[in-house]
Amino acid sequence: MKREIYLDNAATTKPLECVAEVVKETMLAYYGNPSSLHKKGMEAENILKEASQFFAKVLGCVPEEILYTSGGTESNNMAIIGASLAYRRQGKKIITTTIEHPSVSEVFKYLETQGFEIVIIGVNAEGYVDLKALENAVDEETILVSIMHVNNEIGTIQPITEIGKVVKSKNPDTLFHVDAVQSFGKLPIHVKKSKIDFLSMSAHKFYGPRGIGLLYKSKQAKMKQLFWGGGQQKNFRSGTENIPGVAGTLSAAKYVFKEQEAILSHMANCKATLANGLLNHLPDIWINGPGLAEGAPYILNIGFKDVRAEVLLHALEQEGIFVSSGSACSSHKKVKDGVLVAIGLPNDCLDNAIRFSFAHDTSLEDINEVIEIIQSQVTLLRRYTPGGRKK
Amino acid sequence: MKREIYLDNAATTKPLECVAEVVKETMLAYYGNPSSLHKKGMEAENILKEASQFFAKVLGCVPEEILYTSGGTESNNMAIIGASLAYRRQGKKIITTTIEHPSVSEVFKYLETQGFEIVIIGVNAEGYVDLKALENAVDEETILVSIMHVNNEIGTIQPITEIGKVVKSKNPDTLFHVDAVQSFGKLPIHVKKSKIDFLSMSAHKFYGPRGIGLLYKSKQAKMKQLFWGGGQQKNFRSGTENIPGVAGTLSAAKYVFKEQEAILSHMANCKATLANGLLNHLPDIWINGPGLAEGAPYILNIGFKDVRAEVLLHALEQEGIFVSSGSACSSHKKVKDGVLVAIGLPNDCLDNAIRFSFAHDTSLEDINEVIEIIQSQVTLLRRYTPGGRKK
Repeated sequence: MKREIYLDNAATTKPLECVAEVVKETMLAYYGNPSSLHKKGMEAENILKEASQFFAKVLGCVPEEILYTSGGTESNNMAIIGASLAYRRQGKKIITTTIEHPSVSEVFKYLETQGFEIVIIGVNAEGYVDLKALENAVDEETILVSIMHVNNEIGTIQPITEIGKVVKSKNPDTLFHVDAVQSFGKLPIHVKKSKIDFLSMSAHKFYGPRGIGLLYKSKQAKMKQLFWGGGQQKNFRSGTENIPGVAGTLSAAKYVFKEQEAILSHMANCKATLANGLLNHLPDIWINGPGLAEGAPYILNIGFKDVRAEVLLHALEQEGIFVSSGSACSSHKKVKDGVLVAIGLPNDCLDNAIRFSFAHDTSLEDINEVIEIIQSQVTLLRRYTPGGRKK
Repeated sequence: MKREIYLDNAATTKPLECVAEVVKETMLAYYGNPSSLHKKGMEAENILKEASQFFAKVLGCVPEEILYTSGGTESNNMAIIGASLAYRRQGKKIITTTIEHPSVSEVFKYLETQGFEIVIIGVNAEGYVDLKALENAVDEETILVSIMHVNNEIGTIQPITEIGKVVKSKNPDTLFHVDAVQSFGKLPIHVKKSKIDFLSMSAHKFYGPRGIGLLYKSKQAKMKQLFWGGGQQKNFRSGTENIPGVAGTLSAAKYVFKEQEAILSHMANCKATLANGLLNHLPDIWINGPGLAEGAPYILNIGFKDVRAEVLLHALEQEGIFVSSGSACSSHKKVKDGVLVAIGLPNDCLDNAIRFSFAHDTSLEDINEVIEIIQSQVTLLRRYTPGGRKK
């Protein structure tokens, strides 16, 4: 088999072998419908309960505050649409930032058409939310603030505990939603300490199965449902529960929480090695987003002057190296990358960004190989780029 | 291991071993995000394409008309809410029946609060929709008719081709949605011949994985999306696609379509054996819904006079036999069973119904054992039931 070096873990991770095995075994052994009144249903229901206990413990909440969805997109939609509709009589103002994932930003655009007042807070050159502007924006009319924890493209880690304080100090009734799709299982999160009312998570970003997400919803927060039906999950999310998916998610979560510090430090090592290896050997490249030590240890966004990202991406693909240009979701969108524009990158640098994202099993040996290949590819590509450096 | 006879296949089926294996293998081998621009993304995308080609072929449509969702509930919600919102300027009238699954009937109740005019067509004693009433109800204002193919509780098979003709002859612009969760993979369906615009399906009802559904949406039909985000699936259903789920669904579908006639005839045999075995040996029992030969060959709903369904259900559970009282979704609802009321069952018979539902691997030997156990249990329970027959 040809070498494969997968550095697109912010798009999706390879599930753990044990997760795939748990999904398979649960499919075959616990196939009952939790809504069924008999033992087969109870056995299935017990898996849900065990999982919710675990997730509640790692988040600092109670099991009843954990809901299961089909993924991060549904979790974000459910929290934002559901809360906005539930509180529309209390106020119409909802706030977010310029660097959210489309499953947040597009929801805000939709809610604007439904009569909500949308406020979008800017970020600085490193992607940090303007806290002063946020503080000024939150008022009596503000029912919801939605801010992502770790940015999927440049890895900025927002100070969510500080943000929670700012929001609640201006209006204790304003709900705080955090899109933690890129941080849950990687960075510590305590929903009560950070005054979070809704938190979105996605299993396939932390070596879990596809098609399953979680939503923490504080007991106090009201939320309208997106789906109507059999009344599962206290009527917040009708539909037969995906028990094998939940079991697989639990299996992945147990691993990442047990090894959290070790994995994080390993990924930080990968990131530093790759960044320094490239910065030290290639001229005219730069890091997009926060500095090396500050950003999420598993996301590195680098700009290569005079090299079109898509061309470099495909050149690396030929070598068995898989990376992303901007967000992985962007193959559906031809627009200029929103996050890079938001941090104020000049127009002529927007097409030069490659995102490298790391996992627990990224090897330093592979990283060193990637450095060498990128060096030679970038040098080669620049030779043939109009306006590129001639040798 | 204690004997287990699972006759609750309308709630959920046990997935095939090969399906569980395909899910596992796909998780590990094709973990790319279809939205990624590199080969790993393409490989994942190809699985989607292969699946859509298969489903299009068996339904008589084109691959672009197949969407993937998180299950039957989402498919029903998406079709009904999505179409109603897309056509609300053309008319406000939407029509359904008295025997739909909650993921249809609850959606209609919700849409009524959103200003739609709801018409609910009745059924006869066997659960067949009143076609004359339907014909009278469809008018220029009618934008959608939603009728289930096979009823989940009593197994009535609606004449969907005839219904399609009735609807379209009254108003060719009225969209026709069919909830085929209990029929897809079991009974033949041709969406174009039956003039169907939307068809909902659920993988776990035909030995596929949990948490994955399909929606056929005709190209001509417009539909607003439920989720906003990355623009996947032509923007109709944002969210990273559940590739292992789709692969597992395809694997299950290939099996059920290849063996469709054989499985159907086997299940019909199981049903007839159980029904006749009970009817011939126990007094005061009856079939709810259509006659033995007419209803779906995999659903049998029997009423046992003077025996409370829940008591019999748990007595059977003790013997390792798993059945349902009414719909499997009903553990969340304490209300009287809607379908049995709708077919006009007297009040004092509503609590006596047990649903038996069969699968490809239900064994006739097991069925014969079930007949014996039910005979003795029912006789026993009746002895101790106030008002029951004393011996």
